[in-house]
Amino acid sequence: MTNISYLDKVNQVSAELTAVLQGIEIRQVEAYLATLQQADKVFFVGVGRVLLALQTTAKRFNHLGIKSWVVGEINEPPIGLKDILVVGSGSGESLFPKHIAARAKQFGAGVVHLTSNPASSIAKMADVVVDFHCGSKAGTGAFQSIQPMTTLFEQALMIFGDLICLELMEMKGLSQTEVSRNHANLE
Amino acid sequence: MTNISYLDKVNQVSAELTAVLQGIEIRQVEAYLATLQQADKVFFVGVGRVLLALQTTAKRFNHLGIKSWVVGEINEPPIGLKDILVVGSGSGESLFPKHIAARAKQFGAGVVHLTSNPASSIAKMADVVVDFHCGSKAGTGAFQSIQPMTTLFEQALMIFGDLICLELMEMKGLSQTEVSRNHANLE
Amino acid sequence: MTNISYLDKVNQVSAELTAVLQGIEIRQVEAYLATLQQADKVFFVGVGRVLLALQTTAKRFNHLGIKSWVVGEINEPPIGLKDILVVGSGSGESLFPKHIAARAKQFGAGVVHLTSNPASSIAKMADVVVDFHCGSKAGTGAFQSIQPMTTLFEQALMIFGDLICLELMEMKGLSQTEVSRNHANLE
Amino acid sequence: MTNISYLDKVNQVSAELTAVLQGIEIRQVEAYLATLQQADKVFFVGVGRVLLALQTTAKRFNHLGIKSWVVGEINEPPIGLKDILVVGSGSGESLFPKHIAARAKQFGAGVVHLTSNPASSIAKMADVVVDFHCGSKAGTGAFQSIQPMTTLFEQALMIFGDLICLELMEMKGLSQTEVSRNHANLE
Repeated sequence: MTNISYLDKVNQVSAELTAVLQGIEIRQVEAYLATLQQADKVFFVGVGRVLLALQTTAKRFNHLGIKSWVVGEINEPPIGLKDILVVGSGSGESLFPKHIAARAKQFGAGVVHLTSNPASSIAKMADVVVDFHCGSKAGTGAFQSIQPMTTLFEQALMIFGDLICLELMEMKGLSQTEVSRNHANLE
Repeated sequence: MTNISYLDKVNQVSAELTAVLQGIEIRQVEAYLATLQQADKVFFVGVGRVLLALQTTAKRFNHLGIKSWVVGEINEPPIGLKDILVVGSGSGESLFPKHIAARAKQFGAGVVHLTSNPASSIAKMADVVVDFHCGSKAGTGAFQSIQPMTTLFEQALMIFGDLICLELMEMKGLSQTEVSRNHANLE
Repeated sequence: MTNISYLDKVNQVSAELTAVLQGIEIRQVEAYLATLQQADKVFFVGVGRVLLALQTTAKRFNHLGIKSWVVGEINEPPIGLKDILVVGSGSGESLFPKHIAARAKQFGAGVVHLTSNPASSIAKMADVVVDFHCGSKAGTGAFQSIQPMTTLFEQALMIFGDLICLELMEMKGLSQTEVSRNHANLE
Repeated sequence: MTNISYLDKVNQVSAELTAVLQGIEIRQVEAYLATLQQADKVFFVGVGRVLLALQTTAKRFNHLGIKSWVVGEINEPPIGLKDILVVGSGSGESLFPKHIAARAKQFGAGVVHLTSNPASSIAKMADVVVDFHCGSKAGTGAFQSIQPMTTLFEQALMIFGDLICLELMEMKGLSQTEVSRNHANLE
């Protein structure tokens, strides 16, 4: 990579991100939304920066009235038949998320997989797969990103979570004011 | 301190810890228990190792059916009139807990203060104070611990949380089996 | 807002995000980069989803060989004269970050403020201000986002962190392979 | 269990805890201390309240100048030949810790196992085993605790960590003042 300016980088990264988000199939977005609306409780699992991206979604879901937890959290309840687990993993082969997905299946919960590898071990367990086609450790990606490791997937995961929130606000008829009413007020 | 063996250390630390727990006034334990039983939601705030000790309590409270959060958690709801904030701070002067306590008061929530300084700024805002008398940065402690900084307070805080859980199990008539039914099942 | 399709939402949110990132002044980007290169240790502070966005940056900074911590982390060292604190806050008035910024100044550390309010209390303490002009609770934003609360700021903060990483990789002559060598290998 | 008073509970829990800590073999304590002193970096892994107990130890180890991380932390570096992984698990069969232990072995790191089940899968991988004999899900414990689930193990784990810190302070000739110098100063 030859040196490019800050503005060139903004444009390149924005273009990458927009392409990934545009490339997700509507059919998969709708399947995810349908699952979310039927779920009693939503659990998220991921590792590293993928986990951080999922946490931003879990936080906002709670503001929308969707009861959400991240696996490992202080007040995590048991998962059951009416719940879903959302597993974020670019490669779909990360050890910890894979095992948690298998456990969720044992308890009869639904599994949603946000990934760039629709042929992964986790995808095989999933009821709904959302394919980001944006490259992963497994090298299955269609995009050649200028960014290191799975940065592009992590970014797309965060923004995708917020797009899903916009869809849910529409479906539930929630205004921005109503959403902010569920926000923590202590800090 | 002259060098003492591992067993001597066990005995010394156990003696310190037992003395601190025995030294807490029953009247204060009962006031805390009464507040917990009336609360709709329980929030915890603290810093560093004090926070970790409070997190062990928050985790178990959820197993007992008491809805509990740590301030800053992903799914923290807003605090309100029927809720309580439990503030752990040896000195009772830690900046962040102090401000969160003031916020909680603004929203009409009750405040419980677990401390070693019953004359602190936080104590002045609190509805219930539980005094551990076990020394703190403010140097108000009755005990001369062989342990560095506020280690003894942090240890007592964790064990005290578990003693409160035993009391609550008795009051609610919960068996060990019933408690473990609320435990997370994914990992 | 009338209902718009998923693709419309992608395009709208991408446009908002690109505009915010393009709108940051090069002069401010360069000042931030210069400060980062001189710093011995870098500390991050923020609240809620802002904190999560900063954590993605802190994680990657460590991969680039920049020693970074989030305030409150298990292994947080003391801050000193050669260190900097990066404070993320859209409004620049969040209580906890404001107090931590004041503490950092007391210890002689530099302060960088990532914000949408360059006239804020935190901005007044800061050595470097990066203005995202993207709206905040204080309502100073130039953008009318379709997204609730400070979502746009949080998104821009995450992506901006990654753009800064691309700049640092260039400056340090680090390849993607070299960066991934510093990645955790246990999970 | 018939109802017993707060003071009875203090005495019972203190007796349980003291017995567990006294029951750990000196030989195992010494093996752990020797490993810690040779280690370049120390990593901790555990789940739930066990993890919280380990985090209190990791935090204090850093104050003693022993570089320590919890697996999953923002600034976790890769593990290598000169490092050790400390795995806390009462049953020694928890899925996530077991897999992380196997990974650590692959990278040539040492493994220490703090457990109540010295015949566990993790124990088989470990270079050093510290047996708490205090009961676990696997039901191998010698103690009949009045506390639910693995509460007693979690308590003992926290206090044991602090006892190890006292030993390390002695070995390194560190005063309480020197230890507090490494404490975070921002909050």
